[in-house]
Amino acid sequence: MRVTVWNEYIHERRDDAVRAVYPDGIHTEVASAIRDHLGEGATVVTAVLDDPDQGLGNLDGTDVLVWWGHLGHELVADEAAARVQQRVLDGMGLVVLHSAHLSKSFVRLMGTGCHLRWREADDRELVWTVSPSHPIAEGIPPVFSIPQQEMYGEYFDIPAPDELVFISSFTGGEVFRSGCCFRRGRGRIFYFSPGHETYPVYYQAEVRRVIANAVLWVHGGGQSPLHPDESIESPTGWYE
Amino acid sequence: MRVTVWNEYIHERRDDAVRAVYPDGIHTEVASAIRDHLGEGATVVTAVLDDPDQGLGNLDGTDVLVWWGHLGHELVADEAAARVQQRVLDGMGLVVLHSAHLSKSFVRLMGTGCHLRWREADDRELVWTVSPSHPIAEGIPPVFSIPQQEMYGEYFDIPAPDELVFISSFTGGEVFRSGCCFRRGRGRIFYFSPGHETYPVYYQAEVRRVIANAVLWVHGGGQSPLHPDESIESPTGWYE
Amino acid sequence: MRVTVWNEYIHERRDDAVRAVYPDGIHTEVASAIRDHLGEGATVVTAVLDDPDQGLGNLDGTDVLVWWGHLGHELVADEAAARVQQRVLDGMGLVVLHSAHLSKSFVRLMGTGCHLRWREADDRELVWTVSPSHPIAEGIPPVFSIPQQEMYGEYFDIPAPDELVFISSFTGGEVFRSGCCFRRGRGRIFYFSPGHETYPVYYQAEVRRVIANAVLWVHGGGQSPLHPDESIESPTGWYE
Amino acid sequence: MRVTVWNEYIHERRDDAVRAVYPDGIHTEVASAIRDHLGEGATVVTAVLDDPDQGLGNLDGTDVLVWWGHLGHELVADEAAARVQQRVLDGMGLVVLHSAHLSKSFVRLMGTGCHLRWREADDRELVWTVSPSHPIAEGIPPVFSIPQQEMYGEYFDIPAPDELVFISSFTGGEVFRSGCCFRRGRGRIFYFSPGHETYPVYYQAEVRRVIANAVLWVHGGGQSPLHPDESIESPTGWYE
Repeated sequence: MRVTVWNEYIHERRDDAVRAVYPDGIHTEVASAIRDHLGEGATVVTAVLDDPDQGLGNLDGTDVLVWWGHLGHELVADEAAARVQQRVLDGMGLVVLHSAHLSKSFVRLMGTGCHLRWREADDRELVWTVSPSHPIAEGIPPVFSIPQQEMYGEYFDIPAPDELVFISSFTGGEVFRSGCCFRRGRGRIFYFSPGHETYPVYYQAEVRRVIANAVLWVHGGGQSPLHPDESIESPTGWYE
Repeated sequence: MRVTVWNEYIHERRDDAVRAVYPDGIHTEVASAIRDHLGEGATVVTAVLDDPDQGLGNLDGTDVLVWWGHLGHELVADEAAARVQQRVLDGMGLVVLHSAHLSKSFVRLMGTGCHLRWREADDRELVWTVSPSHPIAEGIPPVFSIPQQEMYGEYFDIPAPDELVFISSFTGGEVFRSGCCFRRGRGRIFYFSPGHETYPVYYQAEVRRVIANAVLWVHGGGQSPLHPDESIESPTGWYE
Repeated sequence: MRVTVWNEYIHERRDDAVRAVYPDGIHTEVASAIRDHLGEGATVVTAVLDDPDQGLGNLDGTDVLVWWGHLGHELVADEAAARVQQRVLDGMGLVVLHSAHLSKSFVRLMGTGCHLRWREADDRELVWTVSPSHPIAEGIPPVFSIPQQEMYGEYFDIPAPDELVFISSFTGGEVFRSGCCFRRGRGRIFYFSPGHETYPVYYQAEVRRVIANAVLWVHGGGQSPLHPDESIESPTGWYE
Repeated sequence: MRVTVWNEYIHERRDDAVRAVYPDGIHTEVASAIRDHLGEGATVVTAVLDDPDQGLGNLDGTDVLVWWGHLGHELVADEAAARVQQRVLDGMGLVVLHSAHLSKSFVRLMGTGCHLRWREADDRELVWTVSPSHPIAEGIPPVFSIPQQEMYGEYFDIPAPDELVFISSFTGGEVFRSGCCFRRGRGRIFYFSPGHETYPVYYQAEVRRVIANAVLWVHGGGQSPLHPDESIESPTGWYE
């Protein structure tokens, strides 16, 4: 399995406080979490917005794309976002982290505004499992706490997830569908909200495990491309 | 539309504190909420466990059954619970309130344990809408607060709802899928957790509106019984 | 309820065979079906691609938009398609008919390719109800037959519908999810595949009833716009 | 992974025509299909109704139970059916084959009648994939044909599946949701309709692959039992 962890990599270079938490960039820490859990099972590389082709030149060689973005959503080329969308529909897995709910590719794949309630805060977030039989919940306790987090709350303007795995609460009393599975075309998508540039969320064991589980889930299985003579949106013979 | 509000009617007769809140029984107040909103649109009657046939002698004449129970779940006859289940499968609407998550009929219709996390408490409950296009959310603000409530929390051991309308949070940080729609056979079910015998929850405007909306939703529409010569689980001719 | 039936209105003007079936345009017949069923309950107008603003100048005054298109998908302005999408997210109902599965607005709302298997044919289509409690199935028999139809088959590249109401089979043995409900933002969408320009499908009683039911369903209920001080994607105070 | 293939084993002993197809019983052939695909990955045993404890004495040592039944549904003890249900809720996977849609355990887990339209016939069944990204569809073509089959048709009286993987059509024009995923408690269930005692369906490569995929899917992942001090339906401390 070939995994690419993509990061806009802007906060960490501009802001001392963020750099103090993620000196090598959020992508490096997320990639490390995946390697720790999947070991030989995955080849993990990183890519950033400033790379050639905005780091998206090898989508065809990517089985799972993990995406972190925030300030740079508009800097991603429309054409690149469209390619990511198409690759997901063709079977690539996509893990969308935190503020990437407004990334161009995710918004295109959802078809909705993807807005949410928001407050910059020092809230405690509790993450509750509501689908205990789901592979993404494997090894995760019924509830875990993230001591400091930005608040993301409902209404989260997404289609109803195909499978809802986690719901979070915040000190302010808000709730949020924080772990959401979607199937689109031949691909799978997992959105996971925990993770903020100024808090060490991606060092937390439960969060790392969820991300690794999600990489496995968005990758696994699924049908081979349709056989040429079964191609869609074209005349088809009578099946016999 | 003929609505029956059923209540075991035990707490209110045993316990002064409960009777102080619901002197005529929870069923009376819930029925009043439905009448206030639906007016001429519904004929609302009440029934209690001590009635002849445990108050369930006229299920065939009932379009929507609203159920409140807690201490008396085991007192309801298995045969009666089976009849309620069958009537739902045949098209009767069912609104299940608060502690009726463990009522025999609901447990049979869900097929799961229907357990949940629980704490007797004075928590503030916030109820958040997560399906703003749903008829049961009509007229309900994006969030409303119930000042005092018992805590019901995840994991709530139900099948994933066909439509999830509300998620609640509690002072303790717990979350709960508090408004859940299910379709079973030709019938519809809505589970709504707010409401406790010692707090005046059923006097609150938003709660009353949700219950009335739910009565409309579980009732509305749906297919007539299958035509006799289309009966299921029997040989069927070739359709031409 | 203000309903607009939109049609590209190209086939009927170009092709004698189509004009013979729909002399006043498909939109006129679909509008008539809705008026027949909803009577005073709806004000139904029609609009076509050649109208000013491509017939989409009054979306704000439209509660439900019914869309028929095929040859002219690419002629609809991107800006107009984006406005339709946004109006749905803001609460307008949308009924998408037959070949409009590839209309720009629907594709944007789905986020997928919306392709399907296809054969120009004289197949008999059988439409089976798989959600008998759904309002869109009200008054519809367990199965009905359309004597002549173009074949639309799986795989239909859409997100899993929030509610699946009808599945069709064709003489060739293909199957198709032919009646699909989606909730997006504050709006609702119903896709219904029966209906082809060269067959008199829109004169058939069951099809007319389904379309009228769908108009009611996509319109009904739902939450008022969020209160200004509850606006999404902006800082929000602590809720108390 | 410890897999038990359970069969009532009645048809094959009573009826020469069935024995000619499955001389060692359907269970033996289904077990062979699973072994062929999973190899060392699974320990597969068989059990039949006439075994001690009706073949259900070692549920605690079973990770995945595959169930075939038809004539003997009523012979299975209520207590045994309840134990199967509970084990699923506790995390055991369950694969339900063909006429086991009316097995006591499945009916209890669904909460509905589980009836379906039916015709003893020599229909050709076409099985279409409608969720190409699903692990159970891995390696399965977009459509495959079963030359001779009994007809099972809609309306199939089950809850809407959590994931719908296959839809079948029959020569008679009927359709059927033939591959259905359900999550219940900590367990997963897959219902797969192809397979009849008088046709050699379980020798067909695609069917064998689907069953093996299903065994993997119902088994995989999921959360460990709740920690004792997190036990459900009991007072819970404030989470900090």
